[in-house]
Amino acid sequence: MERIEQHASFGGRQEVWQHDSVTLGCAMRLAVYLPPAALAGQPCPVLYWLSGLTCSEQNFITKAGAQQHAAQHQLIVVAPDTSPRGEAVANDPAYDLGQGAGFYVNATQAPWASHFRMQDYVADELPALIESQFPATAARGISGHSMGGHGALVTALRHPGRYRSVSAFSPIVAPSQVPWGQKALTAYLGEDRSRWQDWDTVALIANATERLLLLVDQGEADEFLTSQLRPELLEAACQHAGHPLTLRRHPGYDHSYYFIASFLADHFSHHADALRD
Amino acid sequence: MERIEQHASFGGRQEVWQHDSVTLGCAMRLAVYLPPAALAGQPCPVLYWLSGLTCSEQNFITKAGAQQHAAQHQLIVVAPDTSPRGEAVANDPAYDLGQGAGFYVNATQAPWASHFRMQDYVADELPALIESQFPATAARGISGHSMGGHGALVTALRHPGRYRSVSAFSPIVAPSQVPWGQKALTAYLGEDRSRWQDWDTVALIANATERLLLLVDQGEADEFLTSQLRPELLEAACQHAGHPLTLRRHPGYDHSYYFIASFLADHFSHHADALRD
Repeated sequence: MERIEQHASFGGRQEVWQHDSVTLGCAMRLAVYLPPAALAGQPCPVLYWLSGLTCSEQNFITKAGAQQHAAQHQLIVVAPDTSPRGEAVANDPAYDLGQGAGFYVNATQAPWASHFRMQDYVADELPALIESQFPATAARGISGHSMGGHGALVTALRHPGRYRSVSAFSPIVAPSQVPWGQKALTAYLGEDRSRWQDWDTVALIANATERLLLLVDQGEADEFLTSQLRPELLEAACQHAGHPLTLRRHPGYDHSYYFIASFLADHFSHHADALRD
Repeated sequence: MERIEQHASFGGRQEVWQHDSVTLGCAMRLAVYLPPAALAGQPCPVLYWLSGLTCSEQNFITKAGAQQHAAQHQLIVVAPDTSPRGEAVANDPAYDLGQGAGFYVNATQAPWASHFRMQDYVADELPALIESQFPATAARGISGHSMGGHGALVTALRHPGRYRSVSAFSPIVAPSQVPWGQKALTAYLGEDRSRWQDWDTVALIANATERLLLLVDQGEADEFLTSQLRPELLEAACQHAGHPLTLRRHPGYDHSYYFIASFLADHFSHHADALRD
């Protein structure tokens, strides 16, 4: 692992690291915020943040104002890049497929299958790396935005017991039913829609064996609300399955980091409550 | 004036506007945060923020986490671009001269004199625009970072009575004595160094007729500390003139927005105390 950035921030330190990912077969960057307690060597719980389409490990750490909350609650925050990267990695000119658009799945189709295994990276390799290289406990929370909100929900639902808390901003809750998701799942998993169900929050909730509360914030002026996000599908699925959901709709808020920053304190409180038990 | 961005943020609204500046002779962009009280039509004091080299009106509003503090204190925050822009405006390939590097002076030398009048823009045209177009009172504070910290200090010192409060992060306090400043002042004002004194905080403090407290934060791991910033010169000038100064040195902090975000709450409190009197 090589540290390529470090900045003092709110009494802790914002770092950016690069390592060779075995799962993805390429170099990966990840942002790690170490709160004051972690700098003092005290093991801290970890909140994983998954970003949205076109993002890298930089967006959340520069735009969300997360460090103040992480310092307050003494949480390590880990924000990985959103896909494998590099010249040897398959790509697509569109912003919503390929590099920067991994959708947190394990691809089975050419040319994606060889590198696009973001689910295994996020759920397995990344926690193992963090818990071996940093003063991190095994108490894990996961959150994200848009494609990364989908990633957070799906990853928690697919791995009962692995995370103590989960939340999302503006998540793609039913990729099988919306254009972004249909395009990505077709490319990464193939035309057989039955295989998509393992990667669709609304589908996974029906048979979830763990009923972690989902905290979801959604802006009502979000430009993707009715075409790509459709929180009413999540609401119906949770109601039908008896899955606990706190869905907050915020009039006037859009899909940007201005929205995330405005309500991020509540998400940190939600995760800290579960992670500090 | 044309509004080109608007985002709900912490109960208020982050906007970006473009207008034709008479002073600068070009279109200018400026960011305006309207706190909840201003959205409700209640006149609010205004904090002006001047950004550093290479910045536009975007850096502060996306990276500093300012909106939460502005909402809490019910302050309008105005962050203009750092220079005139456009194909008709003189430029230089270097990052520290020309577009993005106006240094908040009124240039007298060709080819700069025709557009580079950032001092008059910031001190005169901008407040008049804001106070006529938004629910703003005439209570003004000014702050900034690096080149913009220089801009905030110089603008307040040159206009006694115009601002009620001033602060800076990592300011260039003695441009006459450091490479960034010497290059810019030579280009914009000419070789005659006696003309530089009107644009140099350390020089202006000697004869200031108003003794506003200067709140200055400086990171001790700032990569420009000893070459370009030299806060000890400010300390000595204030001590000699009896000018009130609160200079805080922060071990481990660098020149980035991670530093600004970490201590911005204190600056907002400082300004709000003066602006809400």
